[in-house]
Amino acid sequence: MAKRRLHLLKRPKNTHTVNQIPGTMTYVGHKAGNETKLDVIDYNKEAYERFSSKSTEDAFKFMDEDRITWFNIDGLNNISEIEKLGKHYELHPLVLEDIVNTGQRPKIEEYQDYLFIVAKMLYFEQRGDSHEIVQEHISFIVGSNYLLSFQESDGDVFNPVRERIETAKGRIRSRSADYLMFALLDAIIDNYFIVIDDMSDRIEALEESLFTAQPNDDITIEIQDLKKNILRIRRAVFPLREVISRLEKLESELIEEKTKNYLRDLYDHIIQISENIDIYREMIWGLMDMYMTTISNKMNEVMKVLTIMASIFIPLTFIAGIYGMNFEYIPELQWHYSYFVLWGVMIFVFLMMLYYFKRKKWL
Amino acid sequence: MAKRRLHLLKRPKNTHTVNQIPGTMTYVGHKAGNETKLDVIDYNKEAYERFSSKSTEDAFKFMDEDRITWFNIDGLNNISEIEKLGKHYELHPLVLEDIVNTGQRPKIEEYQDYLFIVAKMLYFEQRGDSHEIVQEHISFIVGSNYLLSFQESDGDVFNPVRERIETAKGRIRSRSADYLMFALLDAIIDNYFIVIDDMSDRIEALEESLFTAQPNDDITIEIQDLKKNILRIRRAVFPLREVISRLEKLESELIEEKTKNYLRDLYDHIIQISENIDIYREMIWGLMDMYMTTISNKMNEVMKVLTIMASIFIPLTFIAGIYGMNFEYIPELQWHYSYFVLWGVMIFVFLMMLYYFKRKKWL
Amino acid sequence: MAKRRLHLLKRPKNTHTVNQIPGTMTYVGHKAGNETKLDVIDYNKEAYERFSSKSTEDAFKFMDEDRITWFNIDGLNNISEIEKLGKHYELHPLVLEDIVNTGQRPKIEEYQDYLFIVAKMLYFEQRGDSHEIVQEHISFIVGSNYLLSFQESDGDVFNPVRERIETAKGRIRSRSADYLMFALLDAIIDNYFIVIDDMSDRIEALEESLFTAQPNDDITIEIQDLKKNILRIRRAVFPLREVISRLEKLESELIEEKTKNYLRDLYDHIIQISENIDIYREMIWGLMDMYMTTISNKMNEVMKVLTIMASIFIPLTFIAGIYGMNFEYIPELQWHYSYFVLWGVMIFVFLMMLYYFKRKKWL
Amino acid sequence: MAKRRLHLLKRPKNTHTVNQIPGTMTYVGHKAGNETKLDVIDYNKEAYERFSSKSTEDAFKFMDEDRITWFNIDGLNNISEIEKLGKHYELHPLVLEDIVNTGQRPKIEEYQDYLFIVAKMLYFEQRGDSHEIVQEHISFIVGSNYLLSFQESDGDVFNPVRERIETAKGRIRSRSADYLMFALLDAIIDNYFIVIDDMSDRIEALEESLFTAQPNDDITIEIQDLKKNILRIRRAVFPLREVISRLEKLESELIEEKTKNYLRDLYDHIIQISENIDIYREMIWGLMDMYMTTISNKMNEVMKVLTIMASIFIPLTFIAGIYGMNFEYIPELQWHYSYFVLWGVMIFVFLMMLYYFKRKKWL
Amino acid sequence: MAKRRLHLLKRPKNTHTVNQIPGTMTYVGHKAGNETKLDVIDYNKEAYERFSSKSTEDAFKFMDEDRITWFNIDGLNNISEIEKLGKHYELHPLVLEDIVNTGQRPKIEEYQDYLFIVAKMLYFEQRGDSHEIVQEHISFIVGSNYLLSFQESDGDVFNPVRERIETAKGRIRSRSADYLMFALLDAIIDNYFIVIDDMSDRIEALEESLFTAQPNDDITIEIQDLKKNILRIRRAVFPLREVISRLEKLESELIEEKTKNYLRDLYDHIIQISENIDIYREMIWGLMDMYMTTISNKMNEVMKVLTIMASIFIPLTFIAGIYGMNFEYIPELQWHYSYFVLWGVMIFVFLMMLYYFKRKKWL
Repeated sequence: MAKRRLHLLKRPKNTHTVNQIPGTMTYVGHKAGNETKLDVIDYNKEAYERFSSKSTEDAFKFMDEDRITWFNIDGLNNISEIEKLGKHYELHPLVLEDIVNTGQRPKIEEYQDYLFIVAKMLYFEQRGDSHEIVQEHISFIVGSNYLLSFQESDGDVFNPVRERIETAKGRIRSRSADYLMFALLDAIIDNYFIVIDDMSDRIEALEESLFTAQPNDDITIEIQDLKKNILRIRRAVFPLREVISRLEKLESELIEEKTKNYLRDLYDHIIQISENIDIYREMIWGLMDMYMTTISNKMNEVMKVLTIMASIFIPLTFIAGIYGMNFEYIPELQWHYSYFVLWGVMIFVFLMMLYYFKRKKWL
Repeated sequence: MAKRRLHLLKRPKNTHTVNQIPGTMTYVGHKAGNETKLDVIDYNKEAYERFSSKSTEDAFKFMDEDRITWFNIDGLNNISEIEKLGKHYELHPLVLEDIVNTGQRPKIEEYQDYLFIVAKMLYFEQRGDSHEIVQEHISFIVGSNYLLSFQESDGDVFNPVRERIETAKGRIRSRSADYLMFALLDAIIDNYFIVIDDMSDRIEALEESLFTAQPNDDITIEIQDLKKNILRIRRAVFPLREVISRLEKLESELIEEKTKNYLRDLYDHIIQISENIDIYREMIWGLMDMYMTTISNKMNEVMKVLTIMASIFIPLTFIAGIYGMNFEYIPELQWHYSYFVLWGVMIFVFLMMLYYFKRKKWL
Repeated sequence: MAKRRLHLLKRPKNTHTVNQIPGTMTYVGHKAGNETKLDVIDYNKEAYERFSSKSTEDAFKFMDEDRITWFNIDGLNNISEIEKLGKHYELHPLVLEDIVNTGQRPKIEEYQDYLFIVAKMLYFEQRGDSHEIVQEHISFIVGSNYLLSFQESDGDVFNPVRERIETAKGRIRSRSADYLMFALLDAIIDNYFIVIDDMSDRIEALEESLFTAQPNDDITIEIQDLKKNILRIRRAVFPLREVISRLEKLESELIEEKTKNYLRDLYDHIIQISENIDIYREMIWGLMDMYMTTISNKMNEVMKVLTIMASIFIPLTFIAGIYGMNFEYIPELQWHYSYFVLWGVMIFVFLMMLYYFKRKKWL
Repeated sequence: MAKRRLHLLKRPKNTHTVNQIPGTMTYVGHKAGNETKLDVIDYNKEAYERFSSKSTEDAFKFMDEDRITWFNIDGLNNISEIEKLGKHYELHPLVLEDIVNTGQRPKIEEYQDYLFIVAKMLYFEQRGDSHEIVQEHISFIVGSNYLLSFQESDGDVFNPVRERIETAKGRIRSRSADYLMFALLDAIIDNYFIVIDDMSDRIEALEESLFTAQPNDDITIEIQDLKKNILRIRRAVFPLREVISRLEKLESELIEEKTKNYLRDLYDHIIQISENIDIYREMIWGLMDMYMTTISNKMNEVMKVLTIMASIFIPLTFIAGIYGMNFEYIPELQWHYSYFVLWGVMIFVFLMMLYYFKRKKWL
Repeated sequence: MAKRRLHLLKRPKNTHTVNQIPGTMTYVGHKAGNETKLDVIDYNKEAYERFSSKSTEDAFKFMDEDRITWFNIDGLNNISEIEKLGKHYELHPLVLEDIVNTGQRPKIEEYQDYLFIVAKMLYFEQRGDSHEIVQEHISFIVGSNYLLSFQESDGDVFNPVRERIETAKGRIRSRSADYLMFALLDAIIDNYFIVIDDMSDRIEALEESLFTAQPNDDITIEIQDLKKNILRIRRAVFPLREVISRLEKLESELIEEKTKNYLRDLYDHIIQISENIDIYREMIWGLMDMYMTTISNKMNEVMKVLTIMASIFIPLTFIAGIYGMNFEYIPELQWHYSYFVLWGVMIFVFLMMLYYFKRKKWL
């Protein structure tokens, strides 16, 4: 079972930086070692350009007014580069703080010229034999013709979207930045489905092992582990419902009317995931109760074996003990057939006991 | 008990197609092998015509403007035919996606020319000895004089409605498409009643078996099974409340005022089902607690047998052991009546024990 | 305890008639054998007339415009008579359906000329030794100068109201049909108090028996029985809160302003009952936990007896066993006082054990 | 512990009078034996007068228009005197009914000339060794220059207010009847704090006794008792939140604007009490779980003693049994040192067992 | 584990002063011994002045109109000094009462010239070996150019803010009193993060000890302790959400528009803390269940040892007992090889038993 063990990366100790001046950027995530990478995709219906860079200034040169520009920043520990982007797009200091603050919960904020969206990615990562659920902080800045996305590491969650832009599949190249935002949120939510499905598999596997395995603390640990995971996934997913619901109802020039149908679709998906999470939650809670009954059942079985063995042999041993006494005068002892009669009595007692336990259905 | 075992068809692994372009139709249900069949009923107060076909084009020829046309599509895996229908009625690509996406939860969406309603059918299907609950994805497109219904397989849930149209029973032939929609939803909800009643029977059967059967893991599995079923039924039924409530309040030309009384009636029914589901839910949760107490009661009984046997014979065996000792000088051994006196003592101890356990009400 | 056993009449198998045309009247209750009886009371401040009949037509003759007419129909299985009433008062087909549909939950519907109210009566009925809670479906049609009430059987819940009309006690003769409706609802709710009080008595009786009785499955069954009853009573009572709250706020010519004070009073009563139901619910749920602890306490006691007996006599038996061995050379055996010394040792061990268990407070 | 036992007075059997005409006054409380007493305080900024009487008529003579008159009626069983007051102040019959109906939950009703407020007093009363929580029904009629308060018995809850009026402490003499109402409600709520604090003490005392006492049913009874008390206190207190919140928002000439600050303060207090009640509730529920674990822990300890004793001596007894056999040829029996070697073996087995249990941490 | 033990300071017995005149100031906290200290910081963009004093009058002299003045009062037991401040700033008597009433829950009240905010500080304090959570009552009066803060003791929670003012870091010197209020609330909430993180550490530590330690009541006490702490922290934190939410929406001249972004940020933080509290709550509740299963697992293990020992040796002892009988004629006794054959039989029985338990996976 160890191989299927599922982890959420440990919460970093100080997800919140205490006593710092509000608006100060401090990255507190667990991927502090990653280098910050900048990936820019510049496109419209006809044109498509993509390049990577480590410097923000490089990127600005290539930007074009009548194209959609998607800046994707991988790695949040290079504060200065993010600050340059912030200055260029005139982002509020609190927005910059939240971009790198991995403790921030999903939310949406509407500013004059842009929308600020925070979400959580959940995806699998291979660690040795097992795969782990990784939770990653992601933020979007959606402007009129640009979209900035800030990730903790360069995962491959957005690759299908990149491919669709490159190969001009679907509507994406002919729509504006809000549709790109939708496509990226859709990719994030698609990954929720994968994680949730895996959760469901694990619940079923655990359920089966409840009945086959001997009682042991590993199962308790496993169930508690699942509980924590579902609670954390819930916390990552549930606030996003509100975010998407508000996006759908937003009256802003940044969101085209025809994109709203797609956002409504997205909302359906996130509700579907939420419902599943709540069902799995109830199932996991139920697992503990189930486990208690299986332990009790096994205890019952153990006790029955003991009771049957003891109830049969203790009386017989007593009988044998009687005739092991050294009294001078025990009449039965002299009789020649006593021993055989006694065996008869003992077998009779034994059979009566068997019959009694049979009738009680303990055998 | 195995025969009465109740299943919901296993959730298909990928109920949600990951990383596909939004608006793409992919059928992910478990009835992929079924052929798509088209059943058309064309009627008004005077006329009635019905024909089946495998091609959508055939169907369009027979349509008549001043009649109500009910297209019923069985089988969602023939994407191209559904697309043709979609083109003919100018359905939104996301609507088409949701028609075949069996993971979609019940909902209602109002478009310019039509209403789009998603629901879940629950009905029984014979599998070998037992009957299973089948959950089926169903969608309706309700236009001014047509209704499209998309099913996963050709069940017989709608047959009573077809019959009422054919024999012109009730109001159905003299009313428009919205009343047909009501009649179909009514048929779906009627089936919920059947499924729910069966659930109730199973809970009662399980309750009784709790007390008669020896503790075993099958009962735990059965209870967990019921829990999962009620959770899934709940998920299929509860969102439909919102759907029907919104239908009732909808200000649309597509819903006639006099149909609303019927929708209100429908709403009453779905609320009644919801209340029953919640009551059964509480009962199932209560079953686990009941089971724990019956296990504990049985354990108590086992322990009492052991304690009574051991408490009676262990002291007696000790007494016998005393006089089995080989000391040179044990005065009692020489006395002629010792053996009989000892029997007297033992019977006295035995009776005292019986009295003690009797007073404690363990016997 | 058997005598105090409380039942709700079993839910009839098909409380909902599946696949029938909406607006069709089918009585599905458990009192199908009862004959339909019509009881008419015609009154105003000065006059009072009462007569029974089996035919609706008879009744219409005696009706008078400037009097309040109260039709009370006992027995819902005579569909045709109810239909005649329905035609006379121009009731909607769905109203007629709900009058005889005993599965219908409490509700209020406002029509052009009348109010339609559905409620549930709860009262006791003597069955052999025990009394049972009976749940009965009841509906009211309140018009400007008439009130129709439809009962499943002729109970005596409304007798006090009839008496007040006859003897002209209180305000009832000088008020219109809405006050009569209030008086009848008040009589129904008064009976809830009786049922609820009995529930409370039973909870207390069960609570006491938890501690005195030996663990047995009857108590578990009893608790589960109470759970079901409180859930069903809850379902009968809770929707009525909404009904009365809406009645109180209704802006209709059918409800006089001065009646509203009385409806507010009624609302207070139903809230009081609801609060009691929720408290009893929590107590019943608590009973299961209490029962588990009492079982565990009793198990603990059993185990202590076993442990004490075994711990005292097993070592003593071992000592006796030692000197029952047949070795050629056991020095103690020859010594003349060995036997008595050994008794001393054994009594010392015995006392030490007693002291040990005393200190552990097991004795 | 018995001395600290806490009771709520038993709910009187018929808290609701069934089948009486609405507006009829019937006192159903448990203090039916008390005589009705009338205490009148008549005051304004300058003057103060107080007198007691048994007749309402006496009281009316002393009333003065430009003073605030506080009628305090102790004892609700003298219906006729209360009716005279009702006639004098033109109170609605339903108000009079609710004044004496001790089952009525806390509420506020606004009439033309007065406010009607129902609340519950909770205070301690000495009964033999223990003190009991008494719940008492109390109602207020607040008019422009008078306040009527109806109590079940003459407690001393309002004495501090009386004293403040007499000694002219604080603002009370210079304010009108609404401030007096506030002062009385404040006195009632102050008593809630005392009751709630005592509850908290009892929870802590019980918690400690869980670990020290041997498992016994008294603790279960005690916990269940606490549960019931907290549920009943909750029911007395929670509706008062709504009452005070509505008082604060009331637009009525009877409530001065400057009194509202004080009502807001009162609302804070009642919210604080509610929060405490909910926390104590959760703690009491937690007590049952705690108790189960302590029982299980104690059971574990018992079982360990049994297992250790049995596991050590049963094998040893078997060895002794072997050499107690009477076979003609058992080679060991003849050897001179067998007995001593055997002791060695037995001590070795004994030590191995001890080591085994030590390593398992059972010792 | 003792060292990590976490306490909330015991609730003082009478957190609410009963029967005192409303508006009377009485300090009921646990820090009654502390001296009241006054710390004044007077600043604007250019100037900065700070001084301490014990007399309020001293402070007033130094105040300057065009500067922001922050009065920080440490110690609430010096009622008279606080009253002088109250008179100077014309505070409502109920405000003064709430400033010293440590039982008051977090709230916000809007007065003509100032805002009154009550909150709770949570921070750690070293007590001997362990650190304790201290809850402290804190209130703010926010005026146009002044801020009064009332603490129970002089903690160092606000030191970072003081430092920022002194060193003119961040925006604080150039903003008005509302931003100072935000900065102080931010400092309080930052400390919540520290307390909550410690809570999480303790839960994890406890979780591990569940599996390693032998069942003992300390763990139960520890879990109950955590429950109480999380409930109390919850009560301190949750009302603050409402406070900050109302602050953010407040239309008052006292709150500048640009401060609202910061308040929104604060609201995010408090929501994040609330979510964590609820997750930890669920985990702590889960701990009790986990503990029950680990106890049961350990019990199972104990019982298995007993059953295996008893089941093996009881039958063997019986066999030995048989041949210890003293019958004159037992044929086996005379046979020369009986003893060795018997050993064979016994070893065979022993191996069969081992095999049986192996197959049952008990070994």
